Amino acid sequence: LSESLKLAVAGVGNNISALLQGVQLYRRMLDEGVAEDRLPGVTRSRIGGLRVCDVDFVAAFEVDQHKVGKDLSEAILTGPNNYPLLGGPVQWQDVAVRHGIRDDAPGARRTVAEELRASGAEVLLYSLPTGLQWAAEEYARSAAEAGVAFVNCTPESIARSPEFTELFAAVGAPLVGDDLASHLGSSVLHRSLLRLFADRGITLRSSYQLNFGGNEDFRNLRERGGSKRQSKLNALAQDGVDLAAVEIIPSAGYVPQLGDHKVAMLNVEGVGWGNTPVELDLKLKVQDSSNAAGVIIDLIRIAAAARRSGITRFPAAAARVLKSPPGGHRAYGAEAIRRSELELEPFDVETSGR
Amino acid sequence: LSESLKLAVAGVGNNISALLQGVQLYRRMLDEGVAEDRLPGVTRSRIGGLRVCDVDFVAAFEVDQHKVGKDLSEAILTGPNNYPLLGGPVQWQDVAVRHGIRDDAPGARRTVAEELRASGAEVLLYSLPTGLQWAAEEYARSAAEAGVAFVNCTPESIARSPEFTELFAAVGAPLVGDDLASHLGSSVLHRSLLRLFADRGITLRSSYQLNFGGNEDFRNLRERGGSKRQSKLNALAQDGVDLAAVEIIPSAGYVPQLGDHKVAMLNVEGVGWGNTPVELDLKLKVQDSSNAAGVIIDLIRIAAAARRSGITRFPAAAARVLKSPPGGHRAYGAEAIRRSELELEPFDVETSGR
Amino acid sequence: LSESLKLAVAGVGNNISALLQGVQLYRRMLDEGVAEDRLPGVTRSRIGGLRVCDVDFVAAFEVDQHKVGKDLSEAILTGPNNYPLLGGPVQWQDVAVRHGIRDDAPGARRTVAEELRASGAEVLLYSLPTGLQWAAEEYARSAAEAGVAFVNCTPESIARSPEFTELFAAVGAPLVGDDLASHLGSSVLHRSLLRLFADRGITLRSSYQLNFGGNEDFRNLRERGGSKRQSKLNALAQDGVDLAAVEIIPSAGYVPQLGDHKVAMLNVEGVGWGNTPVELDLKLKVQDSSNAAGVIIDLIRIAAAARRSGITRFPAAAARVLKSPPGGHRAYGAEAIRRSELELEPFDVETSGR
Amino acid sequence: LSESLKLAVAGVGNNISALLQGVQLYRRMLDEGVAEDRLPGVTRSRIGGLRVCDVDFVAAFEVDQHKVGKDLSEAILTGPNNYPLLGGPVQWQDVAVRHGIRDDAPGARRTVAEELRASGAEVLLYSLPTGLQWAAEEYARSAAEAGVAFVNCTPESIARSPEFTELFAAVGAPLVGDDLASHLGSSVLHRSLLRLFADRGITLRSSYQLNFGGNEDFRNLRERGGSKRQSKLNALAQDGVDLAAVEIIPSAGYVPQLGDHKVAMLNVEGVGWGNTPVELDLKLKVQDSSNAAGVIIDLIRIAAAARRSGITRFPAAAARVLKSPPGGHRAYGAEAIRRSELELEPFDVETSGR
Repeated sequence: LSESLKLAVAGVGNNISALLQGVQLYRRMLDEGVAEDRLPGVTRSRIGGLRVCDVDFVAAFEVDQHKVGKDLSEAILTGPNNYPLLGGPVQWQDVAVRHGIRDDAPGARRTVAEELRASGAEVLLYSLPTGLQWAAEEYARSAAEAGVAFVNCTPESIARSPEFTELFAAVGAPLVGDDLASHLGSSVLHRSLLRLFADRGITLRSSYQLNFGGNEDFRNLRERGGSKRQSKLNALAQDGVDLAAVEIIPSAGYVPQLGDHKVAMLNVEGVGWGNTPVELDLKLKVQDSSNAAGVIIDLIRIAAAARRSGITRFPAAAARVLKSPPGGHRAYGAEAIRRSELELEPFDVETSGR
Repeated sequence: LSESLKLAVAGVGNNISALLQGVQLYRRMLDEGVAEDRLPGVTRSRIGGLRVCDVDFVAAFEVDQHKVGKDLSEAILTGPNNYPLLGGPVQWQDVAVRHGIRDDAPGARRTVAEELRASGAEVLLYSLPTGLQWAAEEYARSAAEAGVAFVNCTPESIARSPEFTELFAAVGAPLVGDDLASHLGSSVLHRSLLRLFADRGITLRSSYQLNFGGNEDFRNLRERGGSKRQSKLNALAQDGVDLAAVEIIPSAGYVPQLGDHKVAMLNVEGVGWGNTPVELDLKLKVQDSSNAAGVIIDLIRIAAAARRSGITRFPAAAARVLKSPPGGHRAYGAEAIRRSELELEPFDVETSGR
Repeated sequence: LSESLKLAVAGVGNNISALLQGVQLYRRMLDEGVAEDRLPGVTRSRIGGLRVCDVDFVAAFEVDQHKVGKDLSEAILTGPNNYPLLGGPVQWQDVAVRHGIRDDAPGARRTVAEELRASGAEVLLYSLPTGLQWAAEEYARSAAEAGVAFVNCTPESIARSPEFTELFAAVGAPLVGDDLASHLGSSVLHRSLLRLFADRGITLRSSYQLNFGGNEDFRNLRERGGSKRQSKLNALAQDGVDLAAVEIIPSAGYVPQLGDHKVAMLNVEGVGWGNTPVELDLKLKVQDSSNAAGVIIDLIRIAAAARRSGITRFPAAAARVLKSPPGGHRAYGAEAIRRSELELEPFDVETSGR
Repeated sequence: LSESLKLAVAGVGNNISALLQGVQLYRRMLDEGVAEDRLPGVTRSRIGGLRVCDVDFVAAFEVDQHKVGKDLSEAILTGPNNYPLLGGPVQWQDVAVRHGIRDDAPGARRTVAEELRASGAEVLLYSLPTGLQWAAEEYARSAAEAGVAFVNCTPESIARSPEFTELFAAVGAPLVGDDLASHLGSSVLHRSLLRLFADRGITLRSSYQLNFGGNEDFRNLRERGGSKRQSKLNALAQDGVDLAAVEIIPSAGYVPQLGDHKVAMLNVEGVGWGNTPVELDLKLKVQDSSNAAGVIIDLIRIAAAARRSGITRFPAAAARVLKSPPGGHRAYGAEAIRRSELELEPFDVETSGR
């Protein structure tokens, strides 16, 4: 068996709660005899030899005073986090949450780098709220200083920045990002449906996608959803969709009753033969942070496997679950991605690359 | 310009109403200056040089006494047909609907063959109600006798029967079938969604598909939907879907208020990361017979183009819009179909074949 | 506190599983300190002094050989029953399920009557599958012989039959029925929506209601739903709804994946000012047998309270949750029902009556 | 026949387009022989003798320079208005849209009052965008000066302001408002469903209501929906609904593809017997401005009838279609409203009042 992945996290939000509790749940399932390839909701049993349960949390950084100082097992259950308990108490992690990097604290970057080194972390997972470019950069530099792989879950520009690509190449650590695609999100679903309409010769007339939920993301996005809307529309434009017919509302509302659930309402209307209408309405409900963690588990395993193999190029296998990989999706042809995926076990990063 | 396709029809139901009215509508649009490749709801502008409006109806057969003897333009609007008027009166076709083949009328086949010859028909389109294997066979033999191409819209076994394949090869006429796939139907949608779930690593827990509508098909299917249910499940099984999780009801009910509309309700439930639920509900509403006519228009053009080119092998391009092509879909690899499609203009049937 | 209600049951299906497990669950909640009027999903805390947990099962009859002989606590979990476990094991009831009345077993009625007397039952709850008029009659006569109150959950005609009304009046036992209304069912919802449309001056154009589920009822109803459809349409006709616009499918399909859940799809389409469309689509999902048990709990308490008070007239308070009370709903004016409801505690049956 | 109602309008938005075109459509239907009480989408055939087609537009005020100066028939079709054409060209009204009252134009009020008098208007309908209290007041004073009845469609406080009540009483003109209830809106639907859940003993757990659409209201409300949200929640609180369980988003998004359509998504989740879930999802789609015009037609007829009868008290019959009638809904008991409605023909305002 491979040695467990040593993970440090920057930001202790719902995503980390989902990740940590999921790891613990799957470990229990495996102990109870569930076959490795029968774990529910797991896309890939192994990446670089690592199973989904082979993750040890070794460090955590956060600025929320209600979380700092607590054990990670307690911090993930502290409000405004509202991811549910996954069928049992969370095991004590013996990892105290430390003060994260703040805007007004010079020198913090160095401290974080030292703590990363001391913890033995292989990967630093960055998942702060969207919009803090400076914080993403500071944590990335800390990781580079410590020679630790960096995974950026947010839309901030790190992995697609030449500056950081060079920095990580120089220190010999993998850099993976940017911006997580959901495990099964409204974007991929919307694109599938629009593509199906186009494939079948149904002429698109109107379509909308509304997303809403009850966690902090939806509260924030309600006001600052503009760039997310544009990024989702860009993805559709790449597919050749007529944007004049489409509207996307990343956060239609903050509905606290939903807790960490996300709901997407999709409507697609077109015309078929004889100009007669085709109407489709769809509701998708998911556990929002599980939708992130189901992808994070792959990204951190890819990053760790690459680091263990001494490879620092961007791993093509990661492109599939990122919204903005360096160079865009076109840099990773279907062939390249397929090949790299087939060879994920054992992990062979050489097949990837641009 | 190509000379118009000369079409004979066996059965004058909603599908023929949709086909004829659509042809007329698109002809008007083109006259009004709409560009050929901007016609709404049309998958392929041309096949073998033929536009969607290049269809002349030259003969029609039917056993319903309320339709026989009428001009085709009137017969398509006679109940139980309930396809809507597409924005204007239907032009007089100068084609009287003739007595079709009946169970108890020996010799009818010869008469039909003679009428086919006399009419100059290139293609006989067979679209009687599902379940009349004997009728499908009789009309197919009539077409063969007259040297006319045959397109079978129904699930009856004709094109996938070696006997008929040989018969049509012998007379040098194309044979296209069996069983129309919808332009945008619940099956293709259901398969897309289930595939998406599988691709993303969401474990399927439960799924159902219910179809209902207000035309005669739904009244008939309510009682005799068993084989259709099985055929839809088979298609899912080919995709590797766990059938224990899936139920399909081809006709959940006859709802006359819906007229010729079809409604499909789809539900897909699975679990993602951490065994947390993913729930999807979808409603699709289409004009049922447009959904057929949008595919028929391709099949009859393919059949006519093949006949004009003197080709009698089954055209691979047709496989894409049939549920049961001869040899099954696997006989027509994605590559073969793609290639044949690229070459549809000018139509080159040699690239297809098993 | 009132002495617990002594209940005998004819038929050990999902409804009885829901009733028994619910009684046990609420008893536990009350023990844990939940206030009597804060029990979730309970319409009336007390009827005739009886709480929802004040039910003792004293006898059970059934013909399914897989259930006969088992303790009631085991029989309710035996297939095809598929009501879920309500958060914990079911307590041993110390009530062996006995052979029920069969078509071919003369004398069974007398045996049942003796067992009812021996068990001390106050109420016999009849909930066999729909359509067995003879069985309903036999059990009703058994109850009458034993002087036990009779509650008929099914559409069979018992309480609205003059013959049985007289029989129960003669023996001095209450007779309550026929045909359970759901706790929150598709009928009441559909009627509410249609009434709302009418009240607001929206002109109805089309409406449908489709029900489907995964328990035995839906399997049976798929074939034999005709009378249920008519009874639901009759209810709408009483409201003045234009039936030409409405279709109801009591069982659109048997979807085993749904287990004991019932799903109803409702659509209401009309036109408002300027003849412009108003479209409403609704999905309702409920635990089907909970939907019955939530009403049964009131009917058996009403029956027991009436019997304890020595009253044999049909209790008006029951009319509200029955589809076919004796004399129809009009026999129980809103005023009478409202008055009787206000006085349910203490239960005063004299205020009711026709 | 009654003489037609002479109507002046302040604001020439979609509502006026819907009102004017609807009046024209119904006039044509009546001419074609449709019976008065069979007009689709009309709640009350007559109020005070006035049919829905008995409305003459005599004056119109607006500040949008693209509308001022045009004939009312053209102004209602000028963007951003996007209400559809109701089946035919709009008749020339011979009413030029005049400059409305502006913040920076002292003396405008007097001019409007003079124009009202000159036009012979009986009623001034105020339907500017929400949020302009000063404008509502200025137009109300103009109406009072001219002795014209005033109908306030907006939430601004006019009819519920003692100052204005006195002013209109003094000049002897009716004052009707505030805040239009929709013909069939998401609020009344949401309240009906929540009431039904409560009536049936289903315990509410969570509920949300999201509204979105493609007209200017939704663009404005997206940013300024706070007060509307609160007003909708207040209405639910009056029904005894637990607000902790409910969220309402008045404008979840501006979706231009929807044009003047409004879509509401409602979700209600509760628990029934045995604490088992009851889930309801609903989509309502309406023509937004028809939804307003269907109520405006009643309010202006009530106002005109009251004025003709020389009555100045607030007419109780109007309370039913207003969100904030003077004194709140409780001032108009069900009995009073019912009585006044029964006597609407002939209109007898004396039966109403507080």
